This record gives sequence, C-alpha cells and structure tokens, in this order.
Amino acid sequence: MFVLGIDPGLSRCGYGCVTRTQAAGEYRTIAAGVVTTPPSEPVPTRLAMLRSDLDELLDDLQPDVMVIERIFFRSNARTAMSVGQASGVALLTAVEHGCRVAEYTAAEVKLAVTGYGSAPKEQVQAMVTRLLRLGEVPRPADVADALALGICHLGAASWEQERAMMRGLPR
Amino acid sequence: MFVLGIDPGLSRCGYGCVTRTQAAGEYRTIAAGVVTTPPSEPVPTRLAMLRSDLDELLDDLQPDVMVIERIFFRSNARTAMSVGQASGVALLTAVEHGCRVAEYTAAEVKLAVTGYGSAPKEQVQAMVTRLLRLGEVPRPADVADALALGICHLGAASWEQERAMMRGLPR
Repeated sequence: MFVLGIDPGLSRCGYGCVTRTQAAGEYRTIAAGVVTTPPSEPVPTRLAMLRSDLDELLDDLQPDVMVIERIFFRSNARTAMSVGQASGVALLTAVEHGCRVAEYTAAEVKLAVTGYGSAPKEQVQAMVTRLLRLGEVPRPADVADALALGICHLGAASWEQERAMMRGLPR
Repeated sequence: MFVLGIDPGLSRCGYGCVTRTQAAGEYRTIAAGVVTTPPSEPVPTRLAMLRSDLDELLDDLQPDVMVIERIFFRSNARTAMSVGQASGVALLTAVEHGCRVAEYTAAEVKLAVTGYGSAPKEQVQAMVTRLLRLGEVPRPADVADALALGICHLGAASWEQERAMMRGLPR
C-alpha cells in the first residue's frame, strides 16, 4: 500500500509517499518534497498550478490513500483561507484519481509516530527520520509533516485500539 | 458581460448570475440558486460533487467573471475549513473554464449595492431585490449574497473612485 501524506498550503504544499515492507514491516520513502506556487500570481492561478502538480504526482505515484491533517483553526486565522483552499484542491484531486482519503488530528499523528500524543515537533521529526532511515531530518518542515501523516496511516492498525481508548470509544 | 457571484460553502453554495442591459443599464438575473451536498457524505466526496455541479453551471452559463467574497476568518473558525475548501474548488473551476476571478470584501459589496459600507444585511437584501426587480427577497440568504457579489462587480466601475478613497489609494 502506497500512502501519500499531504501538508496542504498554497505557498508550499508538502508531500511524502511511504509504504511498509511486507516482510520486515519497515517503512520506506517512495517520494517526498514540496509543491510550491509563486506568491506573485493570483490565488486562482496558484490553485490551478497546485492542482496540476498534484495531478502529476498522483499519476506518477498511484497512491492508495491520501492522508491529510484534520485541522481546527484557532491560532492561524491568517493562513486559514489558503490552507483550506489548498486542502480542498488536494482532496478533490484524490477523489478524482480514485484515491481514498484519511484524516488524522495532529495529536493522533504524534501518538502514532512517537507513541506520545503531545510530543514536541522535534521529536516527531526525529522519529520520522529514524523510521524511514533518512540521513537527516527532512526539510522543509512541511515534508517531515507529510511523511509523518503517511507513517501515521500505515501504523494505524497497531494503535487503533489506543486511539479508541483516548476517544472513549468501544473497542 | 455575465457575472457569476459565488457564496462558497460545502453544505450550501449560493450562486447568482447577473448581467446589465446595455441600453438602460438595468440589472438582470440570468440564474440563481444553491448547490448543496449531503452532510452524510465524506468531505472529499462532497468536494467532488460541488466541483461537478459548478462545472455544469459554468458550462451552462459561460460567465465572463466569477466573483467571490474575500474572507477574513475571525468569528467563524468552525466553518473556516469547509468554506476555504469550497472556495478553493470554486476558484479552481473558474480558472479551468477560462473564467476571470474577482474578489471583494463584505464592506465593498455593501458599499457597491447600498452605497453604505456598513449597511445591515437586510438592507443589502432589499436592495438586491429592488435592483433585480424580484418579487421577494431571494432565499436562502446564500443566494442573495451571491447576487450581491455579482451586482457589486457590475457596478464596480462607478464606485471604483470611492473605494480608492476609502483605501487611501491615489485616484
């Protein structure tokens, strides 16, 4: 299963495609990077650029699932609009490619990657680097975030029970 | 010139397509309504439904310009994400149909429609009803908002000067 994590944004949209080997259960990076659009262009044009780049990415990678963060806007009201717009375009692209979509909160991603739902960002990045056996922490941070989303989904099966407990759901 | 006002939303996306007669300069409604998506469906599916309905709408109406409200998220953080996502899909659809995009703030729309940038919602709705010679105030409110955006753009030429003054721009 190929899982494509997406950290949506208009200036910089991070992506990280990961899978897990059947034998050893090790995580593998298939592709990772950022899609950028020039701030000098009007927003609608930038959305069309993002759309075109994501189209190409999904054509190339053929992911089974796109994973995106479930966001609650409290602090970053300024960037809320463009994050929402970019996320809308990403989700639309997924559906039109027949790619399933999964969403997790930041706390769920932290829990899945580090075993601790309140882990600091650095700890998540360090764990992503280790799980994927990368030489260094992926930069920019959007790439590490996208990879963490992918790992979260791949690992979901094993921590589904704990998440249900966190949410007080029946197991 | 056909101007399509869009009041973006995932549950209800209002639209209003207006034009102005060359002779008398009167406003005319070409089409108005709402596109809805069922809250029971997952967000990505709803975005794809919205996309498909907007595609059809733009095919039918062939508007020259799509007009959308420039939103600043302060109060409605809860709906910010879905409004942003719907707006992203609407803007993308416009670009892919070769339709220009214009954005105005709520205050600009009020100024253009009523001559008063702090006009209450009811006054804007009454003025939309009057300018388009409709029998009653368009319902739901999303439709009236979308029509107001269209009227705002069509009337823009005449109040551009006043707007520049409001913003302290050189005329």
